[in-house]
Amino acid sequence: QMPRGNLETIHHRALVLAQVRKWLDGLNFREAFECMRKLRINLNLMYDHNPKVFLENVEIFLRQLDSISHINLFLTELREEDTTTTMYPCLPNSTVPVQPAPGPSGKKVDIVCDALRSTMESMDQHKYCLSILTTHVKKTVPELEVALQKVHELRVNPPSAATAVSAEEALKYLLFLVNVNELYEHSLGTYDFDLVLMVAEKSQKDPKEYLPFLNMLKTLEPNYQRYTIDKHLKRYRKALHHLSKCGEEHFTEALNLVKDQRLYGEALGLYPANSSQYRALSCAYAEYLVAQHQPEQAGLLLWRCGEAARALQAFVGGASWRNALCVAEQIPLPPDQLALLARDLAEKLIELRRYTEAAVLLEQYAKDCEEAISALITGAVWEEALRLVYLYNRQDIIETNLKPALLEGQMMANANENTFVIDVICLAPYCLYEHRFLSLAFSSQTSFLEAQKAMFIRHKTRLAVVRELKEKARLELLDEDVPDCPEAELYSEASSVMTGSHAGSKYSHSNSRISSRSSKNRRKAERKKLSLKEGSPLEDVALLHALTEVIHCVDKMREEVHSLLKALVLFQFDGQAGRLQQAYGEALLLIEAGIPEVWQEGLQPTQAPVTGPNSTANSIMASFQQPRHSVTQESEMPPAPKMRNGVKWKLSILK
Amino acid sequence: QMPRGNLETIHHRALVLAQVRKWLDGLNFREAFECMRKLRINLNLMYDHNPKVFLENVEIFLRQLDSISHINLFLTELREEDTTTTMYPCLPNSTVPVQPAPGPSGKKVDIVCDALRSTMESMDQHKYCLSILTTHVKKTVPELEVALQKVHELRVNPPSAATAVSAEEALKYLLFLVNVNELYEHSLGTYDFDLVLMVAEKSQKDPKEYLPFLNMLKTLEPNYQRYTIDKHLKRYRKALHHLSKCGEEHFTEALNLVKDQRLYGEALGLYPANSSQYRALSCAYAEYLVAQHQPEQAGLLLWRCGEAARALQAFVGGASWRNALCVAEQIPLPPDQLALLARDLAEKLIELRRYTEAAVLLEQYAKDCEEAISALITGAVWEEALRLVYLYNRQDIIETNLKPALLEGQMMANANENTFVIDVICLAPYCLYEHRFLSLAFSSQTSFLEAQKAMFIRHKTRLAVVRELKEKARLELLDEDVPDCPEAELYSEASSVMTGSHAGSKYSHSNSRISSRSSKNRRKAERKKLSLKEGSPLEDVALLHALTEVIHCVDKMREEVHSLLKALVLFQFDGQAGRLQQAYGEALLLIEAGIPEVWQEGLQPTQAPVTGPNSTANSIMASFQQPRHSVTQESEMPPAPKMRNGVKWKLSILK
Repeated sequence: QMPRGNLETIHHRALVLAQVRKWLDGLNFREAFECMRKLRINLNLMYDHNPKVFLENVEIFLRQLDSISHINLFLTELREEDTTTTMYPCLPNSTVPVQPAPGPSGKKVDIVCDALRSTMESMDQHKYCLSILTTHVKKTVPELEVALQKVHELRVNPPSAATAVSAEEALKYLLFLVNVNELYEHSLGTYDFDLVLMVAEKSQKDPKEYLPFLNMLKTLEPNYQRYTIDKHLKRYRKALHHLSKCGEEHFTEALNLVKDQRLYGEALGLYPANSSQYRALSCAYAEYLVAQHQPEQAGLLLWRCGEAARALQAFVGGASWRNALCVAEQIPLPPDQLALLARDLAEKLIELRRYTEAAVLLEQYAKDCEEAISALITGAVWEEALRLVYLYNRQDIIETNLKPALLEGQMMANANENTFVIDVICLAPYCLYEHRFLSLAFSSQTSFLEAQKAMFIRHKTRLAVVRELKEKARLELLDEDVPDCPEAELYSEASSVMTGSHAGSKYSHSNSRISSRSSKNRRKAERKKLSLKEGSPLEDVALLHALTEVIHCVDKMREEVHSLLKALVLFQFDGQAGRLQQAYGEALLLIEAGIPEVWQEGLQPTQAPVTGPNSTANSIMASFQQPRHSVTQESEMPPAPKMRNGVKWKLSILK
Repeated sequence: QMPRGNLETIHHRALVLAQVRKWLDGLNFREAFECMRKLRINLNLMYDHNPKVFLENVEIFLRQLDSISHINLFLTELREEDTTTTMYPCLPNSTVPVQPAPGPSGKKVDIVCDALRSTMESMDQHKYCLSILTTHVKKTVPELEVALQKVHELRVNPPSAATAVSAEEALKYLLFLVNVNELYEHSLGTYDFDLVLMVAEKSQKDPKEYLPFLNMLKTLEPNYQRYTIDKHLKRYRKALHHLSKCGEEHFTEALNLVKDQRLYGEALGLYPANSSQYRALSCAYAEYLVAQHQPEQAGLLLWRCGEAARALQAFVGGASWRNALCVAEQIPLPPDQLALLARDLAEKLIELRRYTEAAVLLEQYAKDCEEAISALITGAVWEEALRLVYLYNRQDIIETNLKPALLEGQMMANANENTFVIDVICLAPYCLYEHRFLSLAFSSQTSFLEAQKAMFIRHKTRLAVVRELKEKARLELLDEDVPDCPEAELYSEASSVMTGSHAGSKYSHSNSRISSRSSKNRRKAERKKLSLKEGSPLEDVALLHALTEVIHCVDKMREEVHSLLKALVLFQFDGQAGRLQQAYGEALLLIEAGIPEVWQEGLQPTQAPVTGPNSTANSIMASFQQPRHSVTQESEMPPAPKMRNGVKWKLSILK
């Protein structure tokens, strides 16, 4: 027989929690608190059990506890965690709906602290003094200054109430809650030297250390004094605010602070927009922005504060040509320099393949319609090129440049670019499409289309093979009899074989030539783990990505093909236009027919044998694991791309 | 005991087929043929069993059959069908891999006919005459003219070979294969009157009927004669070809034929590009295209054949402004008319919300920079507006128009448009986003964003509720004990309750005000079956669509917000810019955080109770039906939209 006493002290936690919940529901906070404290149940539950009810009955809670130390215990135990979900979840068969806490939004600890403090202050701020201090200290961002201020208040105006706590006691309590150095720093932050001395005296600090500093501070002009303190405390924003009030003689110091701490935005708000300081700050900010590769924003700042010349430079640097020209006209630049500027900018834009914009510059600012038309022809912007041809009455250019370019773009090939593209196609199929310009420079749209079609078919065929192999591997795994092994393990293993693992794919693609260009792109970096190499673990995913890119690339060509077709027809090249239209139409059809094959809905119906007479609960489970796998796998797989069939590109006059 | 004879005539089909296959594999065509004929096995199997082997051994096949009637039997039974998959599939445990027929590409019937004919012609074209005729007739597009020609050949040069068939016999055989009237028509189509008479005589036709027609034809000029025959046979393309050779006096007839039969494209190819006929045809084609709402293509045709005035009209009709101006300059239009034209076109483009293009017209052709700038301001194309302001030295417009518009666009509201938009939001949440212009005209981007955020939250919250209800409904269905009911039926019922059915959704959305505008869009019509009304069967799908639209709409605003922010900063409206940047940033964050909630991967883990100790094979199956449902349902559901996080819209100078 067991000794009787032992059994009595054993409490079944579920029963205890149920009782505590009942107490809390009945607003019986005292019983609940005593019980929880004794049995070491986390006190957060008092609030978490029903935040709304707790907040509505804070006063009852305080009156029932009726002990500063108990209140402080509750406060210090507060944590940003919902114990009803983490530590003490409700039983699932509970009739109370487990809904997310409907309490006010914000951080739980702050909410409880603020609610308790305001109630305590309205009840008896002297009696609850220490608890009130605790609420300040416990907040997510501790309000140490406020707490110190309250202590200081006690010292300056000692309350007469019998329940009141002395300043001495309060400070001692604060020092118990907070590290002394931290408290000293925060006392400094109140700019109240009385308070500083009060804390310093309580601390172990050597007066020889802090007194000289405090005395030096006392000699300073108030704003500069506060600036010095803020800087000492590394509160640079506040420091800047105070320093900005110290007059022009301290502006250099302010500017250095701004530069050191990168407080440009803050600083601009502190000086009037038409002041010289504002201008100096704008210039400093602009320099910083240019260094951060943000020349356009730098230009905007410089322009608006009147630094036109420097703004121009920034805009040119950022290829922000419209702004650059506005500034240039405002300066105003002499016509010949304006023309030069326009040419420089146009060159930049052509490098960026922004031909239409380059043409505007060349035409309107450099007054060189020939160059403008040439840029448009290079960019395959046929209609706009023609517009300028007629606007400037330069029909001769049609024969000399436009028609040959039309046909070249359609029929012939520039050997160099061509081989480059082929190279890229072989090396890194999905890097190609991000360099969209290639398809423009690519001399023959038709042969480009052929290459795309061939790649689509190759990838699609290979994907079917890979899928078949994986299916076969899966079925083989299912066939093996592993009767005692827990299913979960068995299938997690299977899945890792099937889907491979990111980390383990050794055969990752080392297209170093291209990777350096686009190293910034995180997504691309992830894709590099996928390899199109035959047999690589995620080859199917890699193929899907490659197919997606081909599809996007071909689909994107609609507008370009449409405009080329119109230009070809206009100049009676109906034959070429017809062939191009047919080739492009075929490519689109091929892709559209291929998409449902590649992105099959669900999976093949391998259900039949699974539910046969020989199947067991385990085998059925196992077979249903399959769709699960596919779900997780799909998260890495690109979704089926949508073709922009709404974009009409075909000419009905070609058949 | 059964009578002995009966059993002997029973053949097990599988055994027979196996034997036939063996014979075919051994090139034993004769045995196979005899057996198949006797047991009524489809003769197509002779080819289908192994197309490659058959085609390589056509001569052996012919020699073994050695009977014209047998060959004809085989030919007439040919069908475009692979009997090895449809009628006589191989047994699955067969060791021969069931791969798709590796035969040559093309239609099977044509392949077999052509192969047999060429072999027969090389062996003995007289002996196999009738079979050769059969191969012509059996082709997918029967080659009756060729067959007739061969008969005619026999008649003109009767072969001396003993095995030869007479023209009489051959024609009789042809008439047995083909309808007499069809044969007569085709004989006419050879333009060979001898042949026509030969067929006519064999037919039941009354000579009084056909002789006058034939005699009339004989009097005509050869090309016109052929045209008349082609027209009689409704072969309009051929008719046009012949008529085009009949000279100018018949051109009106040709033009009428082209118009009647819409042979415009064909016709243009028959006349030289600089001829008057080409021009007349182009005009007719253009008229047709305009009627077909293809004014731009009409304009291209008219322009290239020199009909400048009409081309201009067509281009104006199609808002094809660049082309219109080219033509106008080419005519050339006097300056005042050109300016008027430009204004007309600009007005059209502004209606189409193509402000930048309208501005080019107003600036460069109407020489009205004020109007141009005004158009750009209306379209919120801030940088381009500023460019023109400085280009034309009209800085006054900044104060009078640009700044107020900037702020209005950001802060104030045009009452009319505002209420309209709110209306649309309430009535038809997803119609709104297709009218993209609203967000531009929408006076306050900030309040627009608020509305979007509110809608996103409302739909998301409701979606969670709907999903919970459906889950509850599903679990209730699972709880019911229906022990003998087949699972499939039970769950298909459950799924129809859960997902509702397209046809049965009575509460479809009757947003008639909007529907009339966009009735063309099929996809939208489908969506109308989805209703956002609470309790509608596909409410969750409708909500997903609505959420997708909100996301796309907000995501699309990046460029616009970016440009507005820059303009606001330039004019020192940092406060407004900061607020807009914050509001937009919050909207994007809200959406981005919401996407994974809305598009959950897989489903909630309700797996635990399902595999508990009380579960049976059936209950496990049932619980796994759930992901299946979600898969089929997802096909109607839009995939999770992708945010264009690559588009940088934030200004770092605003914080």
